[in-house]
Amino acid sequence: MSRIVMKFGGTSVADLDRIRAVAARVKRERDAGHEVAVVVSAMSGTTNQLVAWCQALSPLHDAREYDAVVATGEQVTTGLLAIALQEIGVEARSWQGWQIPIRTDNAHGKARIAAIEGAELIRRMQAGQVAVVSGFQGISPTGRITTLGRGGSDTSAVALAAALKADRCDIYTDVDGVYTTDPRIVPKARKLAKISYEEMLELASVGAKVLQTRSVELAMNEHVRVQVLSSFADLPGTLVVDEDEIVEKETVSGIAYSRDEAKITLRRVPDRPGVAAGVFGPLAQQAVNVDMIVQNIAADGTTDLTFTVGKADLPRALAALEALRPQIGFAEVQTDTDVAKISVVGVGMRSHAGVAATMFRALADKAINIEVISTSEIKVSVLVASEYTELAVRALHTAYGLDAA
Amino acid sequence: MSRIVMKFGGTSVADLDRIRAVAARVKRERDAGHEVAVVVSAMSGTTNQLVAWCQALSPLHDAREYDAVVATGEQVTTGLLAIALQEIGVEARSWQGWQIPIRTDNAHGKARIAAIEGAELIRRMQAGQVAVVSGFQGISPTGRITTLGRGGSDTSAVALAAALKADRCDIYTDVDGVYTTDPRIVPKARKLAKISYEEMLELASVGAKVLQTRSVELAMNEHVRVQVLSSFADLPGTLVVDEDEIVEKETVSGIAYSRDEAKITLRRVPDRPGVAAGVFGPLAQQAVNVDMIVQNIAADGTTDLTFTVGKADLPRALAALEALRPQIGFAEVQTDTDVAKISVVGVGMRSHAGVAATMFRALADKAINIEVISTSEIKVSVLVASEYTELAVRALHTAYGLDAA
Repeated sequence: MSRIVMKFGGTSVADLDRIRAVAARVKRERDAGHEVAVVVSAMSGTTNQLVAWCQALSPLHDAREYDAVVATGEQVTTGLLAIALQEIGVEARSWQGWQIPIRTDNAHGKARIAAIEGAELIRRMQAGQVAVVSGFQGISPTGRITTLGRGGSDTSAVALAAALKADRCDIYTDVDGVYTTDPRIVPKARKLAKISYEEMLELASVGAKVLQTRSVELAMNEHVRVQVLSSFADLPGTLVVDEDEIVEKETVSGIAYSRDEAKITLRRVPDRPGVAAGVFGPLAQQAVNVDMIVQNIAADGTTDLTFTVGKADLPRALAALEALRPQIGFAEVQTDTDVAKISVVGVGMRSHAGVAATMFRALADKAINIEVISTSEIKVSVLVASEYTELAVRALHTAYGLDAA
Repeated sequence: MSRIVMKFGGTSVADLDRIRAVAARVKRERDAGHEVAVVVSAMSGTTNQLVAWCQALSPLHDAREYDAVVATGEQVTTGLLAIALQEIGVEARSWQGWQIPIRTDNAHGKARIAAIEGAELIRRMQAGQVAVVSGFQGISPTGRITTLGRGGSDTSAVALAAALKADRCDIYTDVDGVYTTDPRIVPKARKLAKISYEEMLELASVGAKVLQTRSVELAMNEHVRVQVLSSFADLPGTLVVDEDEIVEKETVSGIAYSRDEAKITLRRVPDRPGVAAGVFGPLAQQAVNVDMIVQNIAADGTTDLTFTVGKADLPRALAALEALRPQIGFAEVQTDTDVAKISVVGVGMRSHAGVAATMFRALADKAINIEVISTSEIKVSVLVASEYTELAVRALHTAYGLDAA
């Protein structure tokens, strides 16, 4: 017998039929003898409607009132699912964030969970009652309703699993697991049975958006075993776990890509100490997230500095750089938004040499030019011209032996 | 400077434009220097949708979950109205039943308010903040969300006005006040400037459904001055107050009618002590509400017993009577659903003789036969054939001098 947290997103509870289907799935786990808590999102479309109303009344609305309005979406789902469960003979009750309580900080609209008091829920789950919990919400130190921000329901589920000391947190979604790469690009992509938190974070942050990044970080810190699986198909999903749980570590687990980056090159920057700090300090102050950074060998006392930022941050970055030009003294700013970042990710890299070399060789064989390279312990990323995205992903997927038989 | 509770029903907050209009009206009261709390219902249509979902999932759904689902309607309105108020420069915040708290009993779906802790709201209102409060809901002794049942928002507003020691409770609705009778029947009906709680109760319970009966009873017990006025027209409404506040008491304030009653006659009931108790005791046990009762003079040791019940209760009443027949021993049960109750209401009756005589004369002049008569301290009611309803109401309106000039 295990204790399981199940989490269902908006499309999984979009209408009464789907809520009934969720109830049936919960019943199956309960009938198998497990203790079950369920975390639900708002019925899909609901949150958008509520947000639109707030924005129509005031573009700069009070985030505390926004939270009071938007949190109703999850509340409706919890009550309806509890009713649907009772209707098929499963004892259940709804829990709002303030009832448990799920304590958060005061950052309305993007609150962080501070603590969850799980004792009462555990007592009831042990007595056979399913706890149906509103995701995405909590209560602030001053007793106001808070929301965690978009995608926060994943985080709610993981945090609840940690508080309840659950054996597993099952995240039901519209994909049926984590794949070696985007199956729309590589039809031979394989579903991974297991993946480590670190790999999941690297894959998520470079574009494979299955789980919200915050929820994976939390799962890693709290050692919550997470399973990603489909709410529509009845198939095993992908287990996201501690690296220790993965016996046969793949050298490379997956290939990710992102077209959300822009490349900036500062030409002929004076090559003296403190220049990098002089550039990236002010960018950080403007909340511009810098990702890859490359500095060439100096010649004639100057160097070229290349880095990438999120496309959405580009105008802000360029304005900051123009303001810096007098004191830094670079010759020119070049930008390129027609780029893609391709990453190979795998915890096995730590003990395997030659991963980067394989990547460069595979790309060279397809005559794909590498513009920027960056590496981390479990990832190698390259920036290439955007038009090569699919070709690069396919070549790498084959090169690392990831294609399904 | 006064302290005012304003209450807006579902049609008054049906969409964003109407919510903005409500905000403007609240601002006017606040700008006039008043301390203001606003009680709101769900946007019209919302509650019906939520109720329909609960019923579709389970006809016999858990009332605690029903309450969790349905109470979200008011929560949305409070947040949106708070945002709309802030947008026009009025300091405001939303309050849910559990936040104030509005304590109720455990009778989910039809809970009664036990206590409201008003101190914090008063402190904030005195500091200039408008309190936007969810009507229709509260929190149970076990911390679950409760709802007061349909029309409960009027009761919430009056209870809040009592807790806040408000000078007035303004109920905004789709009619602009209380009339001497239904203006659809008598175009010369006049709007009353003032009416006593007792009169309002008699008028409400016999069909002039402007305020929920429970809210008027509560206002009477707590001495809350209630004003009924239109949320669409900018006109003075009708003030519902203690009889003492009405200097010039009308002998008759209004004429009410109801077609919701059914007449039952038990023919040739044995005329012996205990028969009435033997009939009406079991009916009360079946939750059948008996209204008018008439017993004829006995002849041959038997009598006829006539009374009225709500039309909806008729089948239950007849079943109960059939079960009683062996022990009571009446000859026959006759029913008539084609009847209307016409009532003249006025606190001035207490000190004026001849009110009933005027009624009987006016009806006789139109050849309307009276089937049953019942009287109370401030009301005379008669049962007539349903087809005479409008004729009777018009004749009485004229007979008591209520027609507008």
